[in-house]
Amino acid sequence: MEISKYPSKILEEAVEEFAGLPGIGRRTALRLVLHLLKKDKEEVASFGNAILQLKEKIKKCKICNTISDEDICAICSNPNRDRSVICIVENVRDVLAIENTSQYNGLYHVLDGLISPMDGIGPKDLEIESLVKKVEQGEIAEVIFALGATMEGDTTNFYIFRKIEPFHIKITMLARGVAIGDDLEYADEITLGRSISQRTIYESTLKP
Amino acid sequence: MEISKYPSKILEEAVEEFAGLPGIGRRTALRLVLHLLKKDKEEVASFGNAILQLKEKIKKCKICNTISDEDICAICSNPNRDRSVICIVENVRDVLAIENTSQYNGLYHVLDGLISPMDGIGPKDLEIESLVKKVEQGEIAEVIFALGATMEGDTTNFYIFRKIEPFHIKITMLARGVAIGDDLEYADEITLGRSISQRTIYESTLKP
Repeated sequence: MEISKYPSKILEEAVEEFAGLPGIGRRTALRLVLHLLKKDKEEVASFGNAILQLKEKIKKCKICNTISDEDICAICSNPNRDRSVICIVENVRDVLAIENTSQYNGLYHVLDGLISPMDGIGPKDLEIESLVKKVEQGEIAEVIFALGATMEGDTTNFYIFRKIEPFHIKITMLARGVAIGDDLEYADEITLGRSISQRTIYESTLKP
Repeated sequence: MEISKYPSKILEEAVEEFAGLPGIGRRTALRLVLHLLKKDKEEVASFGNAILQLKEKIKKCKICNTISDEDICAICSNPNRDRSVICIVENVRDVLAIENTSQYNGLYHVLDGLISPMDGIGPKDLEIESLVKKVEQGEIAEVIFALGATMEGDTTNFYIFRKIEPFHIKITMLARGVAIGDDLEYADEITLGRSISQRTIYESTLKP
């Protein structure tokens, strides 16, 4: 059902704004707006202001390009992080995902996309030059490729690899294999094949 | 995966606001906020302002309680609508749904909920008294019950029925039956039983 008649212009505007977000149709948008209408005026004002502040106050970290409230983000300015390791990610969501594992203590470099000739995105559109400069300066010991396991991710990995290979640093990538909790029968052939050829020494997860 | 560390306080605030909406988790909220961050400043400002205007400018129609930009909504103030018929609905979304069918030309009365003792919602919490007053004034020829086919809907229908029965007006309800496009085997027994006992004269939908 596509709603086409709204009893209020202001309601319609708000619905259209929500419906412009990815994955939200007009029907869901209407439900969300009607939900907001039931809230207190202060709560709705705080919602509206949180959105207004987004573009006004959020910056990009001058070192790693992740979003930040300051010129330098909390990760890059943290003296306890290992500044000799850089993890290359596609976007800010990937930074959050890896941070959330608490398994990584180095810095990041956000590319802001992947090389994708189909979409007209070339190396110049991404933050690759600034990455190469960091490596050139000679203080980086390891670069970790943490891009998605897609054709675009592989292309970007390879492009960057060729650019930083001359500097003879360690270049690693995320392990590929069967996801924890997955049944073998649901793993695709390439992942499963790779998890056999690159098998690791058994370590029991049940050890005390 | 539950994201717990954000690189920016402003980002986190916006994510929390979106995550407070029904059906939106933190992960989706983050996706929406990052989407907004990629847009122009003007577009994001227009989103934020659309939300701020909601509570500041939207009113309830003084006649039917639907939301409106004016004191009287576009439906109630439309001289071409039949003022002798009132369709009783639970909320504004139902008004929009029925309006969208273009099959109804009367007025509405939005109850703003249903009687639900389990949730502590009694007749006094709803716009029932104002409905009874409209009927009392003697200009209503028909009241249509268009509440959901739930226990709460039935309870509310019956409560209102008892209140307006003394005025001897026509009281009707939405037809129940097999939904158009549905296979019989997927219809529940009660609906199917009702669609047999209340069968109507055959009219071909294929007629020119």
